[in-house]
Amino acid sequence: MLRKISIKTKRKNEFVSITDQVNQAIKDSGLSDGLAHIYCPHTTAGITINENYDPSVVGDIISHLGKLVPENAGYRHSEGNSDGHIKSSLIGSSVTVIIDDTALLLGQWQGIFFCEFDGPRNRSVWIKLVKD
Amino acid sequence: MLRKISIKTKRKNEFVSITDQVNQAIKDSGLSDGLAHIYCPHTTAGITINENYDPSVVGDIISHLGKLVPENAGYRHSEGNSDGHIKSSLIGSSVTVIIDDTALLLGQWQGIFFCEFDGPRNRSVWIKLVKD
Amino acid sequence: MLRKISIKTKRKNEFVSITDQVNQAIKDSGLSDGLAHIYCPHTTAGITINENYDPSVVGDIISHLGKLVPENAGYRHSEGNSDGHIKSSLIGSSVTVIIDDTALLLGQWQGIFFCEFDGPRNRSVWIKLVKD
Repeated sequence: MLRKISIKTKRKNEFVSITDQVNQAIKDSGLSDGLAHIYCPHTTAGITINENYDPSVVGDIISHLGKLVPENAGYRHSEGNSDGHIKSSLIGSSVTVIIDDTALLLGQWQGIFFCEFDGPRNRSVWIKLVKD
Repeated sequence: MLRKISIKTKRKNEFVSITDQVNQAIKDSGLSDGLAHIYCPHTTAGITINENYDPSVVGDIISHLGKLVPENAGYRHSEGNSDGHIKSSLIGSSVTVIIDDTALLLGQWQGIFFCEFDGPRNRSVWIKLVKD
Repeated sequence: MLRKISIKTKRKNEFVSITDQVNQAIKDSGLSDGLAHIYCPHTTAGITINENYDPSVVGDIISHLGKLVPENAGYRHSEGNSDGHIKSSLIGSSVTVIIDDTALLLGQWQGIFFCEFDGPRNRSVWIKLVKD
């Protein structure tokens, strides 16, 4: 099953939790057991898994990525968003999570985040479910 | 097939080879052909694939990650382990490896490592096998 | 289906687009729907997805990775390619892409790149296709 969801980001750099939407897609599919592949079709964004409880964790990740990959560092790409492209390859374009008992099998504190690195924009995430 | 394995880490930052446990899970399943998804349910740890032969390689990765993401850098998260959360998102929470002939199909020097970034702790790794 | 393709890199650090070869493997398999897992069996190389249109994007990623992980930084591994090993774990050894209608389902600007971090060398990429 393939589902496409829409996300509207509000800042240049922002992590948006999409855990609920992925669980809804699994529930709607009725798939009890397999893998969920969550894919970002954009080249200045990514997907990561991290702590969903204290929002300062995600804030620290965003802030430290900004130190590792500054907005301006003599990049050649003329669109001015090379930092977003570099962060996209560091974080990765997708995650794969186990489906068990018709739900995501996540660790206690884990959530799935869409990572915006060149917002605000209208974005998509593609969710592909494959059975065991 | 889903298998959960336990790992006891001994240091704050440590890579533990789990290649043998994943191969054992495949052997026990009898699955000849497909994908093995190796998943870390913790938000201050990750999974990576790198050289399994000379341990100084893994030592260099751990040491350089410590330079890129220092333990203290004005983070806001109050638990004092933001460096571990950031490294987790840089390294990634899982890897997927091809199963061929009832074994992991790895490159000659490759091994699979559990990456501890906030140890020592008791940790889990979840292994999901899907057939072709 | 498993396909192994060969790549000849020409520089120490180089991203080589392999999108066409992956699409050809899917076409040859006749698989209409599922996941394509693109895997790098080398420990000083990786696979990433990023912009396929303006080559300066990939140039900026290579150049910035060189700043984050310098060739010489007091590494212990005696082969002198620790930077390549570290970049390999930061970028990741594989990507997974959705197959839809017997082709890769990529975003408009996305391409799949083999990332050489210790070239020039003769390299392999393994493509595993699994049906839905």
